[in-house]
Amino acid sequence: MNRPKTIEKMIEVIKKLPGIGPKMAERLSYYIVSKMLQDDVNKLLNSIKEAKLAVKNCTVCYNLTEYNPCVICSDSTRIRNVICVVESPQDLIAVSKVKEYKGLYFVLGGVLSPLDAIGPSDIRIDNFVKRLKNDNNISEVIIATDADSKGEMTAIYLANIVKKMGIKVTRLGCGLPVGGDIEYADERTIYNAITARKEM
Amino acid sequence: MNRPKTIEKMIEVIKKLPGIGPKMAERLSYYIVSKMLQDDVNKLLNSIKEAKLAVKNCTVCYNLTEYNPCVICSDSTRIRNVICVVESPQDLIAVSKVKEYKGLYFVLGGVLSPLDAIGPSDIRIDNFVKRLKNDNNISEVIIATDADSKGEMTAIYLANIVKKMGIKVTRLGCGLPVGGDIEYADERTIYNAITARKEM
Repeated sequence: MNRPKTIEKMIEVIKKLPGIGPKMAERLSYYIVSKMLQDDVNKLLNSIKEAKLAVKNCTVCYNLTEYNPCVICSDSTRIRNVICVVESPQDLIAVSKVKEYKGLYFVLGGVLSPLDAIGPSDIRIDNFVKRLKNDNNISEVIIATDADSKGEMTAIYLANIVKKMGIKVTRLGCGLPVGGDIEYADERTIYNAITARKEM
Repeated sequence: MNRPKTIEKMIEVIKKLPGIGPKMAERLSYYIVSKMLQDDVNKLLNSIKEAKLAVKNCTVCYNLTEYNPCVICSDSTRIRNVICVVESPQDLIAVSKVKEYKGLYFVLGGVLSPLDAIGPSDIRIDNFVKRLKNDNNISEVIIATDADSKGEMTAIYLANIVKKMGIKVTRLGCGLPVGGDIEYADERTIYNAITARKEM
């Protein structure tokens, strides 16, 4: 194989990214090396470097943010006694497109998955409980995990804990198709689901 | 939309890469920012930076290389009177896996495509003619462009020029399925094609 070592190395690194196979990694590497202008490569490198440097987790809701607390947590016009719990920052963005929801958020950073050995201590269950304990204002927790088995399991686990604290727990209602992935749902479906949320 | 600006920018840049749609760009960006260790991000950035810096076109065959002339052009054990013309560095690697071929190469950097306004001056036809003129030893040119209409058109165009210079021209023979892409062919198919190459 007469491939330059630096390209070989680049392919090895790129193919570790999610959803990128060996052929795609090769295609991207050759494209970057032989077709992209140096200026555009610099833009690519800098955009990654800058985002990685600037973006942190909000210490209140754990959303990705350049400011701490994030713009949502520090927005005084939002309703501060309702928290919507989501799996990931991408899910938070999907829910935040529904303008009718004006409450706060909490990003779990994953869902329970016994088969992958992901238990309660691997996601931010403890941080969430701590937040509820520190903030006596919370009157409702909306659980907006995916409508698949892991999301459902996580919702039930979390609901049990929150209910014991005397706080109302709801789950996104009708609208979400069974097995569906929140991140890919359209805004109307999410809106319907928020409107028709049901107590657990 | 409550997405950090630096992530937004990163998605914009990444989705311009070939074969990467907006959703994939978003997924990659969030993965890099929130899941990858800083060390691994540095490895990714450095591998791109180093490859882009180190890899140039060989000034003889225009293959991508860290040394000039490249390891193939400067390999004195190779047969120096046969040149295999390929479209891209990836195609060169596919052909170079066939150990039975011991000749030299030339990378055109594209194929003729009137619909995309790619004419002879947009690929390295002139450089190739110049190379043939400067090197009186060449007795055969093997054209190994893809077996699709653009590859065929390019082969015919190039064959006419080379034949007028009194040099034998062959084209990869049986083995390549019609409409097939060289980069994805297996080694045996390419070997058969080289063995059964036919004069044009």
